[in-house]
Amino acid sequence: MSSPEIERLIQMLAKLPGLGPRSARRAALYLIKRRDSLLDPLASAMAQAARSVTTCGVCGNLDATDPCGVCADARRDRGQVCVVEDVADLWALERAASFKGTYHVIGGTLSALDGRGPEDLNIAALVSRVAAGDVTEVILATSATVDGQTTAHYISDRLEDLAAEKGAGLNITRLAHGVPVGGELDYLDDGTLSAALKARRPV
Amino acid sequence: MSSPEIERLIQMLAKLPGLGPRSARRAALYLIKRRDSLLDPLASAMAQAARSVTTCGVCGNLDATDPCGVCADARRDRGQVCVVEDVADLWALERAASFKGTYHVIGGTLSALDGRGPEDLNIAALVSRVAAGDVTEVILATSATVDGQTTAHYISDRLEDLAAEKGAGLNITRLAHGVPVGGELDYLDDGTLSAALKARRPV
Repeated sequence: MSSPEIERLIQMLAKLPGLGPRSARRAALYLIKRRDSLLDPLASAMAQAARSVTTCGVCGNLDATDPCGVCADARRDRGQVCVVEDVADLWALERAASFKGTYHVIGGTLSALDGRGPEDLNIAALVSRVAAGDVTEVILATSATVDGQTTAHYISDRLEDLAAEKGAGLNITRLAHGVPVGGELDYLDDGTLSAALKARRPV
Repeated sequence: MSSPEIERLIQMLAKLPGLGPRSARRAALYLIKRRDSLLDPLASAMAQAARSVTTCGVCGNLDATDPCGVCADARRDRGQVCVVEDVADLWALERAASFKGTYHVIGGTLSALDGRGPEDLNIAALVSRVAAGDVTEVILATSATVDGQTTAHYISDRLEDLAAEKGAGLNITRLAHGVPVGGELDYLDDGTLSAALKARRPV
């Protein structure tokens, strides 16, 4: 139909999440028509990212430096380690801008269905990081899904011996469950409502 | 939040049609995690397209060669010229694979609201192409919108003198309006239904 160069661009764009074959064609045409303002800059931004972005050896974050910006920042509290599933979750917490500790990206959840066991996740590194350093709190911030909560449970089991050894020196906590800020009770599911009720606090 | 390289990639991706800031972030992360299988190939496909794709001097199609594959194909009927608004429309007609003539991309529609006049479109080239060559039929395949039909009307006006001069040697036609194949009458708008009824044909 069109030239192989265009076809290849469409095929590659269609692999992006959120773009199907039809919208990939639209995006390809949009790009080609805006060569100087978009196609060239995007191609160079991609090449640049491919060259420079690397995984942080400490926490598993993606950044141009290793250790990453968060781990290297002297103002962050290395005593607090927030365990997240994915870099996207780390970004979400950073956008919220209320956490001043460090992170540990485990790279997914345990999943019997998908055959993902503990050895497929970045958990051993977390355990040795807690064993070695002066970590005082591990915050489990995995998703509130079945797989996410199973993973959180597994991690807290793995850290149990270390916690017993350190006594009050190591707390293991998890994010609060409850009504989302701005959420209407009428639209919330039963599980969230009963969790919010159980965890009610004095005003 | 994240490194400038990643931020720049997200910003550029968010300019694509169909991707907002949120899905651009997801796409950027997806790309960075698949460096060898997706990010590098996509960057090189973009660079390749930016280098090689050009506008056909005859019809306005986008292709790696000038004249484009359609115009250069000896098996296509140069007597038939199908006038389309955009390269995407040309691609759509090529996918239908039932037209064996050539195209002319005018690059949009006339629009009083957006201030697009005839001089902003590739219409003068169409007129001289018809005047010079052995074109026997001009098929107006602009959209069935108000702007599209205004544009078709304008083009047929511009070609009127040539048509009168050539007599039976030049036909100006337009696409049929009617019920889309696979369409249910119940869901069709009144305009389409009355157009289909007016243009009814013997079985």
